[in-house]
Amino acid sequence: MKKIVKNGVIVTASDTYQADLLIENEVIAAIGKHFDERDCEVIDAKGCYVFPGGIDPHTHLDMPFGGTVTKDDFETGTIAAAFGGTTTVIDFCLTNKGEPLKNAIDVWHKKSEGKAAIDYSFHLMIGEINESVLAELPKVIDDEGITSFKVFMAYKNVFQADDATLFRTLVAAKDLGALVMVHAENGDVIDYLTKKALEEGNTDPIFHALTRPPEVEGEATGRAAQMAGLAKSQLYVVHVSCAEAAERIAEARRKGVDIWGETCPQYLVLDQSYLEKPNFEGAKYVWSPPLREKWNQDVLWKALKNGELQTLGSDQCSFDFKGQKDLGLGDFTKIPNGGPIIEDRVSILFSEGVKKGKITLNQFVDITSTRIAKLFGLYPKKGTISVGADADLVLFDPNAERTISAKTHHMAVDYNAFEGMKITGEPISVLCRGQFVIRDKQFVGQPGYGRYLKRAKYGQLAVVDENEKLMI
Amino acid sequence: MKKIVKNGVIVTASDTYQADLLIENEVIAAIGKHFDERDCEVIDAKGCYVFPGGIDPHTHLDMPFGGTVTKDDFETGTIAAAFGGTTTVIDFCLTNKGEPLKNAIDVWHKKSEGKAAIDYSFHLMIGEINESVLAELPKVIDDEGITSFKVFMAYKNVFQADDATLFRTLVAAKDLGALVMVHAENGDVIDYLTKKALEEGNTDPIFHALTRPPEVEGEATGRAAQMAGLAKSQLYVVHVSCAEAAERIAEARRKGVDIWGETCPQYLVLDQSYLEKPNFEGAKYVWSPPLREKWNQDVLWKALKNGELQTLGSDQCSFDFKGQKDLGLGDFTKIPNGGPIIEDRVSILFSEGVKKGKITLNQFVDITSTRIAKLFGLYPKKGTISVGADADLVLFDPNAERTISAKTHHMAVDYNAFEGMKITGEPISVLCRGQFVIRDKQFVGQPGYGRYLKRAKYGQLAVVDENEKLMI
Amino acid sequence: MKKIVKNGVIVTASDTYQADLLIENEVIAAIGKHFDERDCEVIDAKGCYVFPGGIDPHTHLDMPFGGTVTKDDFETGTIAAAFGGTTTVIDFCLTNKGEPLKNAIDVWHKKSEGKAAIDYSFHLMIGEINESVLAELPKVIDDEGITSFKVFMAYKNVFQADDATLFRTLVAAKDLGALVMVHAENGDVIDYLTKKALEEGNTDPIFHALTRPPEVEGEATGRAAQMAGLAKSQLYVVHVSCAEAAERIAEARRKGVDIWGETCPQYLVLDQSYLEKPNFEGAKYVWSPPLREKWNQDVLWKALKNGELQTLGSDQCSFDFKGQKDLGLGDFTKIPNGGPIIEDRVSILFSEGVKKGKITLNQFVDITSTRIAKLFGLYPKKGTISVGADADLVLFDPNAERTISAKTHHMAVDYNAFEGMKITGEPISVLCRGQFVIRDKQFVGQPGYGRYLKRAKYGQLAVVDENEKLMI
Amino acid sequence: MKKIVKNGVIVTASDTYQADLLIENEVIAAIGKHFDERDCEVIDAKGCYVFPGGIDPHTHLDMPFGGTVTKDDFETGTIAAAFGGTTTVIDFCLTNKGEPLKNAIDVWHKKSEGKAAIDYSFHLMIGEINESVLAELPKVIDDEGITSFKVFMAYKNVFQADDATLFRTLVAAKDLGALVMVHAENGDVIDYLTKKALEEGNTDPIFHALTRPPEVEGEATGRAAQMAGLAKSQLYVVHVSCAEAAERIAEARRKGVDIWGETCPQYLVLDQSYLEKPNFEGAKYVWSPPLREKWNQDVLWKALKNGELQTLGSDQCSFDFKGQKDLGLGDFTKIPNGGPIIEDRVSILFSEGVKKGKITLNQFVDITSTRIAKLFGLYPKKGTISVGADADLVLFDPNAERTISAKTHHMAVDYNAFEGMKITGEPISVLCRGQFVIRDKQFVGQPGYGRYLKRAKYGQLAVVDENEKLMI
Repeated sequence: MKKIVKNGVIVTASDTYQADLLIENEVIAAIGKHFDERDCEVIDAKGCYVFPGGIDPHTHLDMPFGGTVTKDDFETGTIAAAFGGTTTVIDFCLTNKGEPLKNAIDVWHKKSEGKAAIDYSFHLMIGEINESVLAELPKVIDDEGITSFKVFMAYKNVFQADDATLFRTLVAAKDLGALVMVHAENGDVIDYLTKKALEEGNTDPIFHALTRPPEVEGEATGRAAQMAGLAKSQLYVVHVSCAEAAERIAEARRKGVDIWGETCPQYLVLDQSYLEKPNFEGAKYVWSPPLREKWNQDVLWKALKNGELQTLGSDQCSFDFKGQKDLGLGDFTKIPNGGPIIEDRVSILFSEGVKKGKITLNQFVDITSTRIAKLFGLYPKKGTISVGADADLVLFDPNAERTISAKTHHMAVDYNAFEGMKITGEPISVLCRGQFVIRDKQFVGQPGYGRYLKRAKYGQLAVVDENEKLMI
Repeated sequence: MKKIVKNGVIVTASDTYQADLLIENEVIAAIGKHFDERDCEVIDAKGCYVFPGGIDPHTHLDMPFGGTVTKDDFETGTIAAAFGGTTTVIDFCLTNKGEPLKNAIDVWHKKSEGKAAIDYSFHLMIGEINESVLAELPKVIDDEGITSFKVFMAYKNVFQADDATLFRTLVAAKDLGALVMVHAENGDVIDYLTKKALEEGNTDPIFHALTRPPEVEGEATGRAAQMAGLAKSQLYVVHVSCAEAAERIAEARRKGVDIWGETCPQYLVLDQSYLEKPNFEGAKYVWSPPLREKWNQDVLWKALKNGELQTLGSDQCSFDFKGQKDLGLGDFTKIPNGGPIIEDRVSILFSEGVKKGKITLNQFVDITSTRIAKLFGLYPKKGTISVGADADLVLFDPNAERTISAKTHHMAVDYNAFEGMKITGEPISVLCRGQFVIRDKQFVGQPGYGRYLKRAKYGQLAVVDENEKLMI
Repeated sequence: MKKIVKNGVIVTASDTYQADLLIENEVIAAIGKHFDERDCEVIDAKGCYVFPGGIDPHTHLDMPFGGTVTKDDFETGTIAAAFGGTTTVIDFCLTNKGEPLKNAIDVWHKKSEGKAAIDYSFHLMIGEINESVLAELPKVIDDEGITSFKVFMAYKNVFQADDATLFRTLVAAKDLGALVMVHAENGDVIDYLTKKALEEGNTDPIFHALTRPPEVEGEATGRAAQMAGLAKSQLYVVHVSCAEAAERIAEARRKGVDIWGETCPQYLVLDQSYLEKPNFEGAKYVWSPPLREKWNQDVLWKALKNGELQTLGSDQCSFDFKGQKDLGLGDFTKIPNGGPIIEDRVSILFSEGVKKGKITLNQFVDITSTRIAKLFGLYPKKGTISVGADADLVLFDPNAERTISAKTHHMAVDYNAFEGMKITGEPISVLCRGQFVIRDKQFVGQPGYGRYLKRAKYGQLAVVDENEKLMI
Repeated sequence: MKKIVKNGVIVTASDTYQADLLIENEVIAAIGKHFDERDCEVIDAKGCYVFPGGIDPHTHLDMPFGGTVTKDDFETGTIAAAFGGTTTVIDFCLTNKGEPLKNAIDVWHKKSEGKAAIDYSFHLMIGEINESVLAELPKVIDDEGITSFKVFMAYKNVFQADDATLFRTLVAAKDLGALVMVHAENGDVIDYLTKKALEEGNTDPIFHALTRPPEVEGEATGRAAQMAGLAKSQLYVVHVSCAEAAERIAEARRKGVDIWGETCPQYLVLDQSYLEKPNFEGAKYVWSPPLREKWNQDVLWKALKNGELQTLGSDQCSFDFKGQKDLGLGDFTKIPNGGPIIEDRVSILFSEGVKKGKITLNQFVDITSTRIAKLFGLYPKKGTISVGADADLVLFDPNAERTISAKTHHMAVDYNAFEGMKITGEPISVLCRGQFVIRDKQFVGQPGYGRYLKRAKYGQLAVVDENEKLMI
């Protein structure tokens, strides 16, 4: 049955206007007013913004790490995401050196099939470049629609790739039409600093931050940016946490490098002092890169406002405090890195950014959805509200107030990093391809509804225009 | 009669998609597909982009300058603008010290009434600040809907205001909700350099450029930016011509100053060497600020791409070569400043920017229309394609090729600054509030159709949302 | 009688070594060891550094200001200077518009003759540029040896010159071989902010700082730097107080502008919070530019270390707290600007800079003496320890500890801005042209001993080399 | 016999004055005038500057490279250096992984003993850090007086160290009091680019430059600077060739990093176009980093002037064109890197820098001698003209004109990179520890006269002050 969303205020990455939407066959069929309501389900969005569904470009669901596995899998993770107004996630598929990439992708398909409540896709980690990997990449792109590769400059002896690997990946990606993503921290320096800290008996969570100082991230970010410029390729820096890194990205952009930067909610509202919480609670706030001194937040907000950073990912990577985070009691290097953010990513940006005047409403949509869709080959099916787009919609009450808490959240973990934070603005109902996933704050979707999305190459649209002359 | 624009590719500041438009009562009534075509005029936009009508934020029509008057008035100027895909102009209303502002505004209404073929509005020049001026400003805003004030830092003993005036204007504008616009060149230094040049017998057009070097513009831009920051007010720098000035704006934005920068087509594609053309032809290229060394073009393009400059104005200010520009034969200071740009502003940005990959298609729309509408209180009635917006539309063939020439242009002057330049992309038909002004490259509108637009205050929307909670 | 200074460690702007000095006829006759001591007065400098006498490039002695006169005149001021290790001062000669410059210079000669205990010279204020002033300048340089001109960008309606005056002074100075000095604050903005503060009833000393924020200084500094670059002239920015201004100077230097920056002890160790002292004590700390937020100190120290700022002046301008500063009770704009610094300038830089590792010992000498001598045409007679130089020497005990206090200082005022500050390092004996002025911490000189110094043109040496090929 | 140098103009890093020197027992005994000339050899320096002997901090004498050995050994190399006004060289001692450092040092002693005509010392290459190396370092410093370590970030699979090695070296150096030197180019990226160039048949010398673009050097320089800051250690970047690298150093200095930069004559006066010379002549100009586009020269000169770069090394590393450079015919990667510069280092800086007004005379002395002595633990025995310093002196005629040519140079190679360049200023006579090495442009010294110099730790003076309180 057709649906009509009426009385809402539609918001896109550039526009804000009052109109009604007609949904038919999963997509937005028309935008107008006074639609004929016969044979339609009518949804009243009065008092609500209607946003395009959020896209989370950075999740780690059901991921093994340090001898344990993230608590949220594709079922709990995507349901929590939906509660928060996200209708698509792109998860990182980890690979193993020496094994075919296809194997890893198959594993990730198994993790997700039948579980995801919203649409999803994969990025692929590149740990090494050799003839075999190079030979497999075109198939990854053409058959799997995976058009983004992730390279780690940190996690020495685990994920870390050397400069040769990063550079060759950039060169290959340019030719293939893929976007290289980079975790930018200097793993060699971190390795030294962490070993030294442990030797000196500095084992508390705060030393996680102190052994990964901003210079370590700024350096790696600058290095990757230079390499992208040299390779004339495209680069996306994940989870930018500090001024040092943001400035390197801005600087490279001004020189004409095709580089993009993502930050995360935790870097915008939490700070390094959280790692000093007593009773090992600091472990809840162990991310890599770590939380920074508070003044960095202002720099990150300004970078979002000025377009020097462009997207917001959650870096969802959840572990229980009891039973997982506490693996690192007495040795901060054993604390699983990451936290539960997938649910509140969109709301925090709205509450802290739009409501406090740091970014505009349209920028908010661009940062949480549109720009991500464009960068990762999902646009214009995903990421906007326009005729022909998937009806991924969030009815958002900008004046609702709530308090974030593990008691009420929908992620599978036993704590929330933003516990007690007051938030203004809340998704009331969420549709994915025209179907309610959340309705009046209740989950009404079903695991397995989510569809795997093959993505277009970098710089190309997800649908071919009949006129064959579209550009983004 | 209702109209349907079908088969086109609609482009906004963030979206690109294929859909049809339904126009009713001057506005866009619906966006969809397969509209019922009964009782409708159907316009086939196949092969065309459909852009929101261009808005030119910087024109000088029927303006007295140095003992002569610009050649194009509100009739010829707006017709030429329409040919080029522009459906709204905002013209500068000049004031005289010691006279009521209202007098000047009345003069400008007389110049424009019954003449404009497209919609129009006015900025108001502020030459002095005193109790009388301060008392009149609220009326200017409330009664006339003039919400932008222009201050000149150059033209010593003519338009130039001192720092006290600029600062007080910024403070007043903040309280009143107006946007201050500034012509940023250090008039004192220019005054010295021009007198010295004449004393030394340097009278050719090139000395216009050499006596207004980039440092003079960079200095004044930086000064104005600092003052805007101090006043916590908003500032719009017109006609940014060079790296020095663009960098000052970018720097201030990074510090959080609410500052915006406009450049012009001439600075993007012409350079200082044009002023050295023989037979006094250099006079055709006398603008203030002047054309710059060619390398500045790359900096300006990158600034547009990275959002460090945000808009494109024409600075339309046309004088005949014969009879007007030649007033400056033997004394470059007597050459009327300005040129005929209103017609090609949009096309040049498309051809040189979008087609050559320097900016995206969506950025092009933002720069020529959407951002201008938002900054100057015209949005969302103007500046976009959305339900409820005025049906100001440009059907644009992106593959049409033409050569710019005074022989074929529609401005009233005897030369064209871009003579011989090959352009790709051309407006085919142009509608203003649902009526054709240009149809199949022919003018079908009429002088006087254009409506005077009262504008909203800075940061406010032109229409009140029924839900009363919209933001831009 | 000849003198021998033995056993000291001689320090110059680049060297540190142990040797003895032979003084004859006012100058350093030889540097060596084991001099024949017959017929010589032998001075034991064991345990002491031997520095070249300090040069204070920025004093206001016996100067009228705001209806009162600075407390220290050429007698008390120069004696206090000598106690602090300074053997030359350059004082600002104020001029009046419409009067011959010569008149003002004569007034300053009268103020100083017979009073100065150490050598001295004058800078000349330029308040206006016209044919009469331009005609007189060559005589000022040739007859008076005054080769530095001061222009004020602040003090509206008092000292403030407009941009035209500053630019013409720069152009004239370039041709004449003079160094232009600038007080860089935007007087127009300050004028507005101070009036507004008073209107709002904000009359306390702290509003002196709040109405002259760093942006006001940064702007004017940048403006002056741009003008110096355009004029291809030389510029010296006095009393740099903050990061904003220091960065503009550094930026201009990197572009090749011949620009120099002076800071003062107060900006290096005091901060804005001092203006908030109760009981009107904040008035003691009213300087223009004002004291800044503490973090600026680190920027200024780094700028000295990296050569982005080059000299230290005192900006000595002393007024009693009782009877002078209190003119501003209830109206901060009536507080006489300035403070008593002449005595502790050198010691504070040593104690806070050298002892704390922020600058090297050689940099200390350069900053307090050598660079100043070179910039202002006194070198090599003044500013260094080399054969042929005037025997202006300071025997300095680097380990002596003392506490600054009005109770023990030698200035004529009733308070000390550094009251209670503990200092390491103290001048024990001071010679000017081979004669003791201070001996074992006692004044043994005499008013009137000081000689007026005619200075060489900018970029020239004070003495002509016999080989005629010296350069600095 | 004592010597007197009379009538010259003595120049140090800060002073310029006319005086005579008395030399006794290898050192400067006194500076004065009218010395008693009995029993003295009197040297007339009339018309000459007297400079402290130059110190070349960067030579590769008798060094194996790519299957061949540099043409100049410690005999020809140091004689040529002396002709050019250099009296001390510090050569790079190469080590082999897995072997004791002592072995390598012994090899270098053997290469130099009995051969050097002037004084010399060694830097030590660090190729790996492990327990054995760490254990040996204190002995290297204490026994050998080697207080500077060189790490290569380029030459993959040959000299290149990874980030862990560089960082650990920095940490160790901080504790030990050594200065880390770094060859900053990203070897991984170069490795890829060179292989790719060869694959594509691009084998000419110009591809040496094109495969090591400025970004590769800028990136590595920035990385090393960040690491030095993190390690709170000290860093010296050798052979800075381009704006990208110079800016990274300046930026780090402004942040307070203890970092220093050296450039070389070739980067100041030659440019990338030299590598395109026909007939394989481009091979003569193959250095790493390579020559750059000409505009970089201006940046390097300004960096020297502003103290953002501090020293000049030769990177002497000479190979014959015939028989050595031509090993790379048909494969640019086989061209031995380096050139013959040791002889003209000082003269080129004087002629191009001082004579052309780019740096001052005192800066020239600092850059070629004093600063190097201070950084590498040779000061104040070396690097200046002061009482007690070694009598290393250069009598330099600033007006002599000559043309550089392989026909007249004293290096052992068959070409000169500056062939045909006209130079103003020439060393006439050169003394090392009071003995003539060059007299009236003739070599009068002897191989083996040169003494091996043990150097002080970083930040310490080479001689202990009797007062024990000196600082530099």
